[in-house]
Amino acid sequence: MAGLKYMSGFGNEFANEDPRCPGSLPEGQNNPQVCPYGLYAEQLSGSAFTCPRSTNKRSWLYRILPSVRHKPFTPMSCGDLTENWNEVEPDPNQLRWKPFIIPKSSENKVDFISGLHTVCGAGDSKSRNGIAIHMYTCNTSMTDKCFQNADGDFLIVPQQGEILITTEFGKMMVEPNEICVIQQGMRFSVDVFGETRGYILEVFGAHFELPDLGPIGANGLANPRDFQTPVAWYEDRTVATGYTVVNKYQGKLFSCQQDFSPFNVVAWHGNYTPYKYNLENFMAINCVAFDHADPSIFTVLTAKSTRPAELFRCVLYELAGDPQHTCAQDLCLLLCHHS
Amino acid sequence: MAGLKYMSGFGNEFANEDPRCPGSLPEGQNNPQVCPYGLYAEQLSGSAFTCPRSTNKRSWLYRILPSVRHKPFTPMSCGDLTENWNEVEPDPNQLRWKPFIIPKSSENKVDFISGLHTVCGAGDSKSRNGIAIHMYTCNTSMTDKCFQNADGDFLIVPQQGEILITTEFGKMMVEPNEICVIQQGMRFSVDVFGETRGYILEVFGAHFELPDLGPIGANGLANPRDFQTPVAWYEDRTVATGYTVVNKYQGKLFSCQQDFSPFNVVAWHGNYTPYKYNLENFMAINCVAFDHADPSIFTVLTAKSTRPAELFRCVLYELAGDPQHTCAQDLCLLLCHHS
Amino acid sequence: MAGLKYMSGFGNEFANEDPRCPGSLPEGQNNPQVCPYGLYAEQLSGSAFTCPRSTNKRSWLYRILPSVRHKPFTPMSCGDLTENWNEVEPDPNQLRWKPFIIPKSSENKVDFISGLHTVCGAGDSKSRNGIAIHMYTCNTSMTDKCFQNADGDFLIVPQQGEILITTEFGKMMVEPNEICVIQQGMRFSVDVFGETRGYILEVFGAHFELPDLGPIGANGLANPRDFQTPVAWYEDRTVATGYTVVNKYQGKLFSCQQDFSPFNVVAWHGNYTPYKYNLENFMAINCVAFDHADPSIFTVLTAKSTRPAELFRCVLYELAGDPQHTCAQDLCLLLCHHS
Amino acid sequence: MAGLKYMSGFGNEFANEDPRCPGSLPEGQNNPQVCPYGLYAEQLSGSAFTCPRSTNKRSWLYRILPSVRHKPFTPMSCGDLTENWNEVEPDPNQLRWKPFIIPKSSENKVDFISGLHTVCGAGDSKSRNGIAIHMYTCNTSMTDKCFQNADGDFLIVPQQGEILITTEFGKMMVEPNEICVIQQGMRFSVDVFGETRGYILEVFGAHFELPDLGPIGANGLANPRDFQTPVAWYEDRTVATGYTVVNKYQGKLFSCQQDFSPFNVVAWHGNYTPYKYNLENFMAINCVAFDHADPSIFTVLTAKSTRPAELFRCVLYELAGDPQHTCAQDLCLLLCHHS
Amino acid sequence: MAGLKYMSGFGNEFANEDPRCPGSLPEGQNNPQVCPYGLYAEQLSGSAFTCPRSTNKRSWLYRILPSVRHKPFTPMSCGDLTENWNEVEPDPNQLRWKPFIIPKSSENKVDFISGLHTVCGAGDSKSRNGIAIHMYTCNTSMTDKCFQNADGDFLIVPQQGEILITTEFGKMMVEPNEICVIQQGMRFSVDVFGETRGYILEVFGAHFELPDLGPIGANGLANPRDFQTPVAWYEDRTVATGYTVVNKYQGKLFSCQQDFSPFNVVAWHGNYTPYKYNLENFMAINCVAFDHADPSIFTVLTAKSTRPAELFRCVLYELAGDPQHTCAQDLCLLLCHHS
Amino acid sequence: MAGLKYMSGFGNEFANEDPRCPGSLPEGQNNPQVCPYGLYAEQLSGSAFTCPRSTNKRSWLYRILPSVRHKPFTPMSCGDLTENWNEVEPDPNQLRWKPFIIPKSSENKVDFISGLHTVCGAGDSKSRNGIAIHMYTCNTSMTDKCFQNADGDFLIVPQQGEILITTEFGKMMVEPNEICVIQQGMRFSVDVFGETRGYILEVFGAHFELPDLGPIGANGLANPRDFQTPVAWYEDRTVATGYTVVNKYQGKLFSCQQDFSPFNVVAWHGNYTPYKYNLENFMAINCVAFDHADPSIFTVLTAKSTRPAELFRCVLYELAGDPQHTCAQDLCLLLCHHS
Repeated sequence: MAGLKYMSGFGNEFANEDPRCPGSLPEGQNNPQVCPYGLYAEQLSGSAFTCPRSTNKRSWLYRILPSVRHKPFTPMSCGDLTENWNEVEPDPNQLRWKPFIIPKSSENKVDFISGLHTVCGAGDSKSRNGIAIHMYTCNTSMTDKCFQNADGDFLIVPQQGEILITTEFGKMMVEPNEICVIQQGMRFSVDVFGETRGYILEVFGAHFELPDLGPIGANGLANPRDFQTPVAWYEDRTVATGYTVVNKYQGKLFSCQQDFSPFNVVAWHGNYTPYKYNLENFMAINCVAFDHADPSIFTVLTAKSTRPAELFRCVLYELAGDPQHTCAQDLCLLLCHHS
Repeated sequence: MAGLKYMSGFGNEFANEDPRCPGSLPEGQNNPQVCPYGLYAEQLSGSAFTCPRSTNKRSWLYRILPSVRHKPFTPMSCGDLTENWNEVEPDPNQLRWKPFIIPKSSENKVDFISGLHTVCGAGDSKSRNGIAIHMYTCNTSMTDKCFQNADGDFLIVPQQGEILITTEFGKMMVEPNEICVIQQGMRFSVDVFGETRGYILEVFGAHFELPDLGPIGANGLANPRDFQTPVAWYEDRTVATGYTVVNKYQGKLFSCQQDFSPFNVVAWHGNYTPYKYNLENFMAINCVAFDHADPSIFTVLTAKSTRPAELFRCVLYELAGDPQHTCAQDLCLLLCHHS
Repeated sequence: MAGLKYMSGFGNEFANEDPRCPGSLPEGQNNPQVCPYGLYAEQLSGSAFTCPRSTNKRSWLYRILPSVRHKPFTPMSCGDLTENWNEVEPDPNQLRWKPFIIPKSSENKVDFISGLHTVCGAGDSKSRNGIAIHMYTCNTSMTDKCFQNADGDFLIVPQQGEILITTEFGKMMVEPNEICVIQQGMRFSVDVFGETRGYILEVFGAHFELPDLGPIGANGLANPRDFQTPVAWYEDRTVATGYTVVNKYQGKLFSCQQDFSPFNVVAWHGNYTPYKYNLENFMAINCVAFDHADPSIFTVLTAKSTRPAELFRCVLYELAGDPQHTCAQDLCLLLCHHS
Repeated sequence: MAGLKYMSGFGNEFANEDPRCPGSLPEGQNNPQVCPYGLYAEQLSGSAFTCPRSTNKRSWLYRILPSVRHKPFTPMSCGDLTENWNEVEPDPNQLRWKPFIIPKSSENKVDFISGLHTVCGAGDSKSRNGIAIHMYTCNTSMTDKCFQNADGDFLIVPQQGEILITTEFGKMMVEPNEICVIQQGMRFSVDVFGETRGYILEVFGAHFELPDLGPIGANGLANPRDFQTPVAWYEDRTVATGYTVVNKYQGKLFSCQQDFSPFNVVAWHGNYTPYKYNLENFMAINCVAFDHADPSIFTVLTAKSTRPAELFRCVLYELAGDPQHTCAQDLCLLLCHHS
Repeated sequence: MAGLKYMSGFGNEFANEDPRCPGSLPEGQNNPQVCPYGLYAEQLSGSAFTCPRSTNKRSWLYRILPSVRHKPFTPMSCGDLTENWNEVEPDPNQLRWKPFIIPKSSENKVDFISGLHTVCGAGDSKSRNGIAIHMYTCNTSMTDKCFQNADGDFLIVPQQGEILITTEFGKMMVEPNEICVIQQGMRFSVDVFGETRGYILEVFGAHFELPDLGPIGANGLANPRDFQTPVAWYEDRTVATGYTVVNKYQGKLFSCQQDFSPFNVVAWHGNYTPYKYNLENFMAINCVAFDHADPSIFTVLTAKSTRPAELFRCVLYELAGDPQHTCAQDLCLLLCHHS
Repeated sequence: MAGLKYMSGFGNEFANEDPRCPGSLPEGQNNPQVCPYGLYAEQLSGSAFTCPRSTNKRSWLYRILPSVRHKPFTPMSCGDLTENWNEVEPDPNQLRWKPFIIPKSSENKVDFISGLHTVCGAGDSKSRNGIAIHMYTCNTSMTDKCFQNADGDFLIVPQQGEILITTEFGKMMVEPNEICVIQQGMRFSVDVFGETRGYILEVFGAHFELPDLGPIGANGLANPRDFQTPVAWYEDRTVATGYTVVNKYQGKLFSCQQDFSPFNVVAWHGNYTPYKYNLENFMAINCVAFDHADPSIFTVLTAKSTRPAELFRCVLYELAGDPQHTCAQDLCLLLCHHS
């Protein structure tokens, strides 16, 4: 998988097609009456249609079969996932969890979905405001199964073990010290290569963006060109035994069956995509004479709440204090929602 | 009722009086120590006092008896009305309801209030954010009874049967292919003329407004002069048997008795009023060469959420797919909250 | 002229027609292929087409002959009008002018146009930012002549003698202690009834609006319903000897001839109109215990500069100090541009 | 306590030290490696680090022992405190409570914490939006005990009996007709001098600010220089028997023990402080000719909600109608959250 | 030149290098101490360093020799170029120019620079606000000569004859019915292929952007992916006879000499680039039932003035009325500054 | 003068009085009918009355004689001061001036006013937008003479020789490596102690403010508490031979005579004051791993233009390249207007 290609730039209007189908991307219009290769045109919206340009997000996907061709969704077990914060009593003390144990694959096959554990959160998907922190611990790749989050965006921070993420937009390999973002409504499947663990920051009702830099100027912190988006890749694969789509919707899990792989997007264009970033490229800034800056100086990405407030102070202390992690990486994760 | 008169314009500062009482509208001030005809001056606020001009809404009503002269409210049955969305399990599938059955008046006398059914919603009146979708099905006029919604604004879309709405501001006849808006706190009574059915979109914490048009320019979509507001009309009527006021408050119904008709406003002025609009006047805009525009191009009115987001995608699909309705009308209704 | 009628409300979407031509206002659309009575439809824009609703200004006029049917404009003498402020040396002293002398009509016939004198100003019409203060002194009505200001809006403050203003939108009688506004591009003619004098505040690139009231609340200062707009009135009059249109354009005067009266608008609708206001209706607010408020508390109308600044302090002192005028009226005038 | 000193100004960047320790405030930097007198430097944040200047709030405290040196918090009884509004059925009637009875100290020793009663509210601390209204009734000073509200800011309005408030920033004596504000996270202890009662307005997710004045101008209502902030005062006191810190966190109470007084801040600087205001200094503004202004004209402080709405109308009526209180004072309190 | 390649997308963060120098674009940082191939790193700023992300524009260029290595600039003749609008008397009449005559190359060799004629304008480069309209008529390519506009951006609209534009960022071929934009400070050279003519819209102090679409939604008018940016191309060429750089600075022309081609940028990345657009791709929107929309509905690009105003009405009439041009293309040009 | 006292904090609401007159500052109101000690109350406005709180600037001064008690202003020579930029031809080359020569006091007595030389600028005081750069070179203190700039604010950067500035608000000693700001309309007098030279940055229509810090957080760059404002100081001095007030007004100088010292302010309060800052306290921030940040990272103060643009690039190069100055100090000065 060393040969995976990416396109650079944050929030770009990308346009690309799988090289196996030259001309599959329609030119000069989005929705021709007949698409090249007989593909189906679908718009995936990441914002209200009427948002201003700078926050308007959508992509057009040209696929072999339409995404709605599946059987009805039925509820399934949510495992350790939740967004009902009232289940837990509040606790003002600084907490410290032991590292989450990764189950042995010899004992228990656990994939990315069944290995999700909610740690904490605030707000919920219905009110379109808030965040949740999850862990994932797994030892097995997802087979003929994909995941789709109808509730919000996932910022994934691998802590142990690289993960290969196949999405409707193409494939990404994400290693520890990299982060990636899968936005609301994008289907993806995760392959792992051993015992694997990481964090997930889920945001409801907002997308991640690069912070305004103010006096720092036109360059600095996470530079936009260091973000990487996958290139179009498809498989035209029938799955007679049934392909499972798992949908997180209003904090609960549902699944449905279809008889083909959802990764059948031959070409796509737009500015609503998954992407990854390598923390090594972070152009660190700090005080050079005396004192030290507030930890917001390590912001990689931010997702704006409706009111600028310090919602998550306890979370910050807890994870930063966990000796199992490198501190810099955690701060990057945890500060992203800090206004 | 063909002779009903209306004043044209959206959001105008109207000033008018029932012609039976010339001079009943005080000139040059709002709150004289003694009003003409001994009327009582009342301000009905539609916004915080301190809102900027463009969102500041209030009207002054000059009435025969003050609106607070009633006995205490007591709870009553809410029937099929609710704003507790947790009662229903979430369901990510596209839904389709059968048309709501209108009860036969020979079997069961149902008026506008008792015929209200909540379909779905998000948010609530207490947090001042969100919407609810209701249906109304009825066969009988409201007699010596009025309704008042303390929770939000009603956008009413008749689907079968015209309705005659008497309000504190005057009378409106609303037919299918028209819509009307009764804003928070305005008392009204509904007369029907047979089996009657329609939608209601209720918004909490926001008022409907005309969308900014951007490149469309100074004219287009719903033009402001095609909105119609009733003219002042009053009745000075004692109701010895008791006049019932029904109040929707925090999602529940309450009722109280008084011994006179609340439609005793002789004159009024202000910019906070009920109004109606005929969809035939919609100046439709769309692509003229290739592709087609997003459905937001059919926006008649909009009510801004605190964050621009696609809260109601499932609702859109569901109603648009119902073969019982003309599609254009439904879209107008459903897009109004898309921001 | 006591019988002149007005419509009430500031910034309303008005719609009206001269009662001599019922049905002359097209319904449900702005620009029919054939207008009633064979009238010509013209849009008069008061803002860029793309302004947001709250600042988008335009009216549709339905007239007997199109406004462009005139001979070319030629330069004429500007008299005492100017917008070249560099002609005068700056002077930091507080100034006080003697009252401007009104010429005797027995000696010299002077109408509104020839009686215009520029007092001071800043900015200019080309940069679309700034103001000018003019005086008018006249003794004769304008005959077969109208004025049109392509540079900005006129706020007119009669100080001696009422004036009858005929506009494309109808007629207004304006007396001392009243003010009126004729916005950019609106043609008007002034009749006087003796020796007449007053101030004009001209603003470039902005329109007058009612100030936001902040803690004062939903009522106070100049209430919107006390502003009065004329009703449609037309004359279908041929002027064989030539009707003169005078145009102020980039600070200079031009004139052209046409063979009919420009006041031939039979019906109109829109929110871009002339209007007047009686200062007696001002709902004055001030300190009631100790100290006194800044003079901005007397603001009637405001026209926003691109930066909130005290551009006109010297002007304020000068006119307020003139013992010939009532102070309250002057302050109202002079504070309108204070932002 | 007549000798207490205060610094004047609202929102100032104050810098001061207890005169018993000259030089204890570090100069030219916030966080030296070794502070004067061996003090510990702590930053107390009142906003997200990244807020714009006008809303960025924080103070630096230099103290004898760090604030985190305490034993774990454990839950304690909340008494009559709550933020679960669903416990009470909604009631649209105007309510009127009897005055809250102050217990006799001969019967029952009640201090400020145990005398807190929640009256009503909306929103909650977790969503960072909303308010609560509490009463306090007490007869005993807090001994070796302090309170800290992690949920929001307290605006305290004494109604009977003055209170001496010791805070980490210094001491304030607050009497009836004065109000004071203790912001989120500031520890304080209350001494009383007899039977004592008052209101508390708690706001979640926002801080109090002075309202913009609009046309009122640069002076008026509550003038900024009349707000008073205490001067640095410390005690270096060991409490062998244990000093109790009570923490309100997500609407519930928790307590912990430490062996020293938390009022050990020798010097501090910053713009996040407690403060008080005497209502006698309110520069009242109102109509001087006819009508009267909306009650927002009595606004002392305001705390912005995310949407400008009239959340608390019923509250306004209820307290204003209570004959036990002076009306002016109640209005000041209740209007502060009105936009 | 049919083989020219472009990258798609408006405002993207592009990153590319001439394929003849693989690895010439530094990875993971902007300004290494030693660049690959010994190139010089230069940042070209298109905005203040401190602009928010959505308006922050800059590119990093990696070139063989630094751009400042040239002899001093000396004034040269400005020909028919000007930005002193006071030279011409104002004229309120609608004007119509005859088409500009293209000189015959057999009589007079005229290149792009010497063929520039200013038509009209407002504002100027020093105040960083306003526009100018120029024509270019030429018959000869620029040889060893480039142009650089320090005053503003050029939107070029070829009307007769395609033009090959070599820039520091690469090469673009622009034909009639295409438009292109060369932003402030970018050096370029124009090759022509016969008699050539076109318009130029110059804007001062603002960059062109895509308009917000409002109710039109997420697609429509000029779609972002149809904008094309050249790919990196360089020449390492010594010009012993001298290469001339012409600089437009504060409305006047200056020239200097250097001994190498300025098109020596081997690799570049950033979001500040030249680009072109084919008007055939414009997704036209208009009324589909009655009336017609304001001409702003044809907006391709917009450059915001500090105040939204109709600065350029006369210009609009004049060019639109010229029978030599296709109307649609002119409107696209002329509406771009309409706010 | 080592004993001068200052109050700390940027933009504070200060309140203070000369200790020789205890009680001279009125309490609880601004404008008593009779002030303590018979002083005259004057409000000095630094903004429009109606600005929002965060930009509303004014101070109240209590003085022995009113400031308007002077004879008329008469024009005087402007020396090398100008704001007419058209006098100089534009020049795109990078410029470098030789250091300005300070005249010998033995040859020519030159004080601060007569030693002012304009270097360059853009915009002007009349349009309330733009800046000017001046130098001052002097060898003699101002005797019985003060200066007042009606055009804008002076940011003064001493380069050689400390200066003692007496203002209406008190006295400041400013040394090289310090900067100070004297805002519009504040009278001041400058004492020197030998050959003295420095820069002045004058801004029109805006005041200096601290930049928003974005991700840098709540501390950093110039911390607000390190700004110092003088304490009230007055002299009650009659000057029989005449005290000269020099006024810069619309770019020209005027002078008038009065018979007393203008530094007769016994007490004052407000947020519109002179202040100084020591550059040693600048908490420098920069890249700590690779690359370096844009020079905006050295911003001390900023004065916002109406459009964020790089107006002054040439100025930046020129002064930064002057080997006579320390680079850091110049950058601080020159970047302050960079958006």
